[in-house]
Amino acid sequence: MRCAMKIEVYDTTLRDGTQRTDISLSVNDKLNIARRLDMLGVDFIEGGWPGSNPKDAEFFARAAEMEWKHAQIAAFGATCAVEKTPEQDENILALLESRAPVCTVVGKSSVLHVHEVLRTTLENNLRIIEQSLAYLKAQGRRVIYDAEHFFDGYKEDPEYALQTLAAALRGGAETLVLCDTNGGSLPWEVGEIVRAVRVRFPHARLGIHAHNDGECAVANSLAAVREGCVQVQGTINGYGERCGNANLCSILPDLELKMGYTCLPQGHLAQLTDLSHYVAEVANLAPDEHLAYVGKAAFAHKGGIHVAAMRRTPRSYQHIDPALVGNTSQVVVSELSGRGNLLSKAEEYGIPLEEGVDVSGVLREVKALEAQGFSFEAADASVMLMLLRQKPDYQPPFTLVDFTAGVEHRQGRGIFAEATVKVRVGEQVIHTAAEGNGPVAALDAALRKALLPYYPAISAFHLSDYKVRILDGPNGTSATTRVLIETRNGHRSWGTVGASTNIIEASWRALADSIEYGIWVAEHQVEPAPALP
Amino acid sequence: MRCAMKIEVYDTTLRDGTQRTDISLSVNDKLNIARRLDMLGVDFIEGGWPGSNPKDAEFFARAAEMEWKHAQIAAFGATCAVEKTPEQDENILALLESRAPVCTVVGKSSVLHVHEVLRTTLENNLRIIEQSLAYLKAQGRRVIYDAEHFFDGYKEDPEYALQTLAAALRGGAETLVLCDTNGGSLPWEVGEIVRAVRVRFPHARLGIHAHNDGECAVANSLAAVREGCVQVQGTINGYGERCGNANLCSILPDLELKMGYTCLPQGHLAQLTDLSHYVAEVANLAPDEHLAYVGKAAFAHKGGIHVAAMRRTPRSYQHIDPALVGNTSQVVVSELSGRGNLLSKAEEYGIPLEEGVDVSGVLREVKALEAQGFSFEAADASVMLMLLRQKPDYQPPFTLVDFTAGVEHRQGRGIFAEATVKVRVGEQVIHTAAEGNGPVAALDAALRKALLPYYPAISAFHLSDYKVRILDGPNGTSATTRVLIETRNGHRSWGTVGASTNIIEASWRALADSIEYGIWVAEHQVEPAPALP
Repeated sequence: MRCAMKIEVYDTTLRDGTQRTDISLSVNDKLNIARRLDMLGVDFIEGGWPGSNPKDAEFFARAAEMEWKHAQIAAFGATCAVEKTPEQDENILALLESRAPVCTVVGKSSVLHVHEVLRTTLENNLRIIEQSLAYLKAQGRRVIYDAEHFFDGYKEDPEYALQTLAAALRGGAETLVLCDTNGGSLPWEVGEIVRAVRVRFPHARLGIHAHNDGECAVANSLAAVREGCVQVQGTINGYGERCGNANLCSILPDLELKMGYTCLPQGHLAQLTDLSHYVAEVANLAPDEHLAYVGKAAFAHKGGIHVAAMRRTPRSYQHIDPALVGNTSQVVVSELSGRGNLLSKAEEYGIPLEEGVDVSGVLREVKALEAQGFSFEAADASVMLMLLRQKPDYQPPFTLVDFTAGVEHRQGRGIFAEATVKVRVGEQVIHTAAEGNGPVAALDAALRKALLPYYPAISAFHLSDYKVRILDGPNGTSATTRVLIETRNGHRSWGTVGASTNIIEASWRALADSIEYGIWVAEHQVEPAPALP
Repeated sequence: MRCAMKIEVYDTTLRDGTQRTDISLSVNDKLNIARRLDMLGVDFIEGGWPGSNPKDAEFFARAAEMEWKHAQIAAFGATCAVEKTPEQDENILALLESRAPVCTVVGKSSVLHVHEVLRTTLENNLRIIEQSLAYLKAQGRRVIYDAEHFFDGYKEDPEYALQTLAAALRGGAETLVLCDTNGGSLPWEVGEIVRAVRVRFPHARLGIHAHNDGECAVANSLAAVREGCVQVQGTINGYGERCGNANLCSILPDLELKMGYTCLPQGHLAQLTDLSHYVAEVANLAPDEHLAYVGKAAFAHKGGIHVAAMRRTPRSYQHIDPALVGNTSQVVVSELSGRGNLLSKAEEYGIPLEEGVDVSGVLREVKALEAQGFSFEAADASVMLMLLRQKPDYQPPFTLVDFTAGVEHRQGRGIFAEATVKVRVGEQVIHTAAEGNGPVAALDAALRKALLPYYPAISAFHLSDYKVRILDGPNGTSATTRVLIETRNGHRSWGTVGASTNIIEASWRALADSIEYGIWVAEHQVEPAPALP
């Protein structure tokens, strides 16, 4: 039983997180991440800025048709332009058109910004804050107010900064979120300023939105909660512009495990490590192994006395039990726990495992392949195939004999890609060729062409995503390449992986798995293993 | 003139930092880093644990022969074994043999650890702390005491934890360093406990040694200094076991620029960004671009209103002037940027632009290519080439005629990749072929083989990174593929980009640009455009 005080979790990975220069998410990526955030149990998912680009507008259109278990979808936008009323302002109208139940509106708190950036009067700024919020509220939306540069603004002119909050309250804001936009505040400053805001507005609900430019974003968020903020904004893995946003993967366990607050539904914190890796994979960024709580090395212990001490008393060198956040100590990797994982995954995906199936052998194979550069986190279908192949009655639908892929660029004739495949289906050998936009597309086309007469279900599969990660950069083009493929059949999709120093071979392995697994699912009428865990 | 209170800086990159699993430094590496730390002006450089391995013993032998400007070299070791006296203990003797002027001795503060790990009595632990320190002190060394697990030990049994400090003071410790060994403490806990220690030992000099397991190591260190600690221990880039040690690259600017303390000789803070990158290079780790203060992206701004605001008022979106830590603001060239961005980049990279160079044409080309899927954020060299090609006197070093790339997988013969290129250099046409681990490596090899006789500088270039991003997944293998290549020549590197629906063509374009730009730089003796913004 937990009856601790609830802190609202407002995730902005999909909006502020994507401001990081090397992140670019497709609409599908964003919807997949949103679904996982909803499973985790966050209260708000800020999906984007619908007024700023058509991709975000599409996200909201599709999100509005989906069912959400825990989270409310929030759309982000700025106060209306000074020379307009809210109902004339395209940015405000885009918030309404997004159909998001929550609108988060950012406005200026700092005299410097009002004069130098907005280039208007202090009074006009107060007016557009109040009017923008009041208009959205009157249209039936929940309205959250993000007070941009609040801490810097307060340090310049506390009275004016507080007046902007008063304007937001008059406009109907349900929560006033104090933003450390430039990220340079220190925890005791944040604490003191939050305290001052509480004195002025004792009944207002306050939130905190911190950035990591002084490497204090997590501590600043915690300090704000200690002083009474009831909403924390942040991103998964701390992704964000410059040095990143406050990292929810650290803040949530700090709040729940060390400070006694409730942030997520009971037990859900154990999803955190998986979610952290999932978001990194979808964003095509190498997961940071040294992240607090969720990094692969967060509970890694080196040998000798340390490990001996750990065995006697795990807390001797661990600040928490890693299972609480879904992580594991690296010295206690047991083959049994791995075995259990595989068995429950097989159940989940409807693969009956008779006596005698060598699950431990599959586990060893997974570990050996991971050492070569495979990663099965986003490729359950490849793992399920490894289990299927252990079953005595499993007949692979095809076996590969040969393939070739070539690309030609001839002046005047442009670029051309062609592939050949030779595969065996039962007693038949099929040898065929196809073209494509690139060598992998050509291989995909040739393989389907060879198999379609035998497995018509293939015609409904299509490749919905293709991700490449180069492992260990320093070797340049000789490094190991890992390819993740997502294949879709109607609304269902599944993920497979291949790795090799040769990108074409890596792609081939992932492609062949994706088709083999899709055929098995189609023939057995089971739910496919999701593309991403 | 600065007369602010001085905080001692104790760097343990070479000891605790190397506990990170993926760092391994040679003795030369360690001496090189130590020299740079000394130039920066830290007070102590902890070089290793001489009792634990011969590499560390060699480091100290060589360090003892060198001259140090600012820093004192410190050797690390544990209290003597319970059953021995200090003069019988090899670990203590190794500290003396190291000839380091400072010996840092770690001892147990926690009842749990005394009983479970050391397996002795509380009294014995107090005795070995006092005796170990007293012995080293009597041999003429400065002695610092590291109180392991101090905060956890204090929470278990404050009185015993304080007694261990009293023992260290009796032994002659000049500074008592309170260690958050498991890294899970929160800033206000650290503050309160430091305050309690100050009450008990008002005349003792205190230090702080924090780890980042709750992502609060920086804030914990700052909180300890606010409560009177006068020494901060940490590592460059926060390297260290599990989630790392407290990051000096954040703590030093936080203390100097925001809290008014003095840590380094005046003006030396401006060396910090270079040092951060240097240590990453020596450790063979990719520098984290998003590190506070010293990351390449720490002051990176995207286009539009943000950049316009920045030009008017730099502090509008920056918490400090980046020059104070030796970093620079980056205005990222992207579809959002304007003419001004390009002109200032050309200046930065030493490309003189005469009248008549069509900068606006290049800007239009950047935007058109970005719409196709290129991204120039990490590929300044490709942009610089576009400008160069506008200059009437620019002669491209080579032009492409044809290329082919093929991959064959034949059963029994494994996988094989081969490429051919035909290029023109002046009046010559060179047509050649090469093999590689994959099609891109083969193309790279063939292109270099063709050009090397004409441009020997190429032999010093090597491909240091190769990144592939598939844009907007829904089209699977027919989606646009973007390839970013980083090429290195000694310590310099530059970035180029290619995009196409065909991964081979995208790679080819990035490869050809990387070599063309490298040749231009080599012939013009200018600083190459950095690989990443």
